[in-house]
Amino acid sequence: MVRKNHRFTLAARPVGMVKPTDFAYEEVEVPELADGQLLVKVQYLSLDPAMRGWMNDAKSYVKPIALGEVIRAIGIGRVIESRHPRFAVGDHVSGLFGLQELALSNGEGYVPIDPTLGPLPVMLSTLGMPGLTAYFGLLEVGKAVAGDTVVVSGAAGAVGSVVGQIAKIQGCRVVGIAGGLDKCRYLVELGFDAAIDYKSADVKAQLREHCPKGINVYFDNVGGELLDIALTQLAMHARIVICGAISQYNNTTPARGPANYMSLLVNRASMTGMVVFDYAERYTEAVRAMAQWMAAGKLRSREDIVFGLDKFPETLQKLFTGENHGKLMLELA
Amino acid sequence: MVRKNHRFTLAARPVGMVKPTDFAYEEVEVPELADGQLLVKVQYLSLDPAMRGWMNDAKSYVKPIALGEVIRAIGIGRVIESRHPRFAVGDHVSGLFGLQELALSNGEGYVPIDPTLGPLPVMLSTLGMPGLTAYFGLLEVGKAVAGDTVVVSGAAGAVGSVVGQIAKIQGCRVVGIAGGLDKCRYLVELGFDAAIDYKSADVKAQLREHCPKGINVYFDNVGGELLDIALTQLAMHARIVICGAISQYNNTTPARGPANYMSLLVNRASMTGMVVFDYAERYTEAVRAMAQWMAAGKLRSREDIVFGLDKFPETLQKLFTGENHGKLMLELA
Repeated sequence: MVRKNHRFTLAARPVGMVKPTDFAYEEVEVPELADGQLLVKVQYLSLDPAMRGWMNDAKSYVKPIALGEVIRAIGIGRVIESRHPRFAVGDHVSGLFGLQELALSNGEGYVPIDPTLGPLPVMLSTLGMPGLTAYFGLLEVGKAVAGDTVVVSGAAGAVGSVVGQIAKIQGCRVVGIAGGLDKCRYLVELGFDAAIDYKSADVKAQLREHCPKGINVYFDNVGGELLDIALTQLAMHARIVICGAISQYNNTTPARGPANYMSLLVNRASMTGMVVFDYAERYTEAVRAMAQWMAAGKLRSREDIVFGLDKFPETLQKLFTGENHGKLMLELA
Repeated sequence: MVRKNHRFTLAARPVGMVKPTDFAYEEVEVPELADGQLLVKVQYLSLDPAMRGWMNDAKSYVKPIALGEVIRAIGIGRVIESRHPRFAVGDHVSGLFGLQELALSNGEGYVPIDPTLGPLPVMLSTLGMPGLTAYFGLLEVGKAVAGDTVVVSGAAGAVGSVVGQIAKIQGCRVVGIAGGLDKCRYLVELGFDAAIDYKSADVKAQLREHCPKGINVYFDNVGGELLDIALTQLAMHARIVICGAISQYNNTTPARGPANYMSLLVNRASMTGMVVFDYAERYTEAVRAMAQWMAAGKLRSREDIVFGLDKFPETLQKLFTGENHGKLMLELA
């Protein structure tokens, strides 16, 4: 039996905003499994801001996607064939499957998924990398404690919405920054103390109003002008967590540096970068804590699920235009 | 007996580079001492980059110098009259005397100076605020340990030269960045492993050559383009100590932000601001350690002493043009 696989590869390095011609849609045959290999039928694929960086030919925390290589993406799927000792047919697994229907590999980096912990899309969202990023970024890097004022940018996103909710659980005052009224309303529904619409509000005036004692933790997913404004409102010994800079990822000119960084000196504050992979040994602890919060109704997850692998190019664009509501992912046939 | 005092006050808020007309030279009479006051004859006054920031009307870690107020400056002097219980005539003291010959005050913030620990100019330099800034910045904020590669900007300055020497004492590899061949030669004399002349060298290429494993600690006195270049050469978990940004202090346009700050994420690195005053309780410990290193010949101090209070305006400019060699200070008659 010959199996056909469909996939997206990198056809060109994007310049500025990603566009459909940066990707090639291909049909290929899946070879027979060798010893130690398994074949996964991909069910969900996560679309993440970080993917944009992987498409650049630049030094980063992982190597760039090569031209002609399948677009790197994390997914969840089911094992449909296995000659691998650790994985059996029927198992749910998560891994860097890539933008394709069938993933053939030696299982490196794959982790088993317990589908009883929650719906599969949630395992790619609040109980997956975005949730884990929020958990470790806020608690380990940001060192948020009860009484702190926590401000998060990209607050309606997959990471930001979890950052805000965990901060509330910890007893912090939480202010979210997001684009548009709909997203801001959603933040208030989630229990944020205040939401600032950066598209219409005077962000500096609003931060001053909602953070009268200054910002203790600024969790940054966005970079650019918002980071610069946040720097002017720091409390003493503030911690800035650098998790991402989505406003800058499609830039064709050099990224904008935070001109107000000397506020770090004035306030004896710090700015620290984080990558969730560094906490891999503690994922289980975090997933367990977050699953309990979800079961108790304290932590809500929202996914924006688009059906069909072929929708990848235009769906990825939604991330950068801010059109998605909740964790963006593809569901495959 | 009427005592005359001569002093410099702030006549105008400087725009860009400081100029003589920003200051007013005045002769005033010193009133009689009230109970609890003392009068200090000022012997040395330290000229520091931070003074430029104090002249701006902007929020900082201390309040701005008011128009008409004596220019704030740290000095060393001798008590010549006292109605204060803690200070006797003949005592050496250090404090924020200001740019003047005679300082009348209630002694707030004054600390006794032990002239047997070293020459008085050294007490304003390596055994004073600049040395203390280097000590706590490198060891407490930068957490430099043996084997680290430490890079310091403004390396021939009062803070930078001590940073580099303490880093060598700790067993680090030390690279200094300074302006001009003379200063670079001085760094090598002090035991730095390498010195980069930012005025003539390709700093990025030189950093890559001299820091083959990347930078573990970047101690920044300068800001601007050098900080941005250093960000491209960080090792994993690097610590950037933000101590100053002298390249930006006379800017009339907004300061240049470090466009490469996302290197903090890629390298899980941090950038932390520091102000030496936060370590006041530990000054004695640090001065003792540094005095021992000096006595053992491991730590050298260099002062650039200009004679005459009236030389203040042009001497301050030397700081920002980089003409001084060693800790810049005025000696008074």
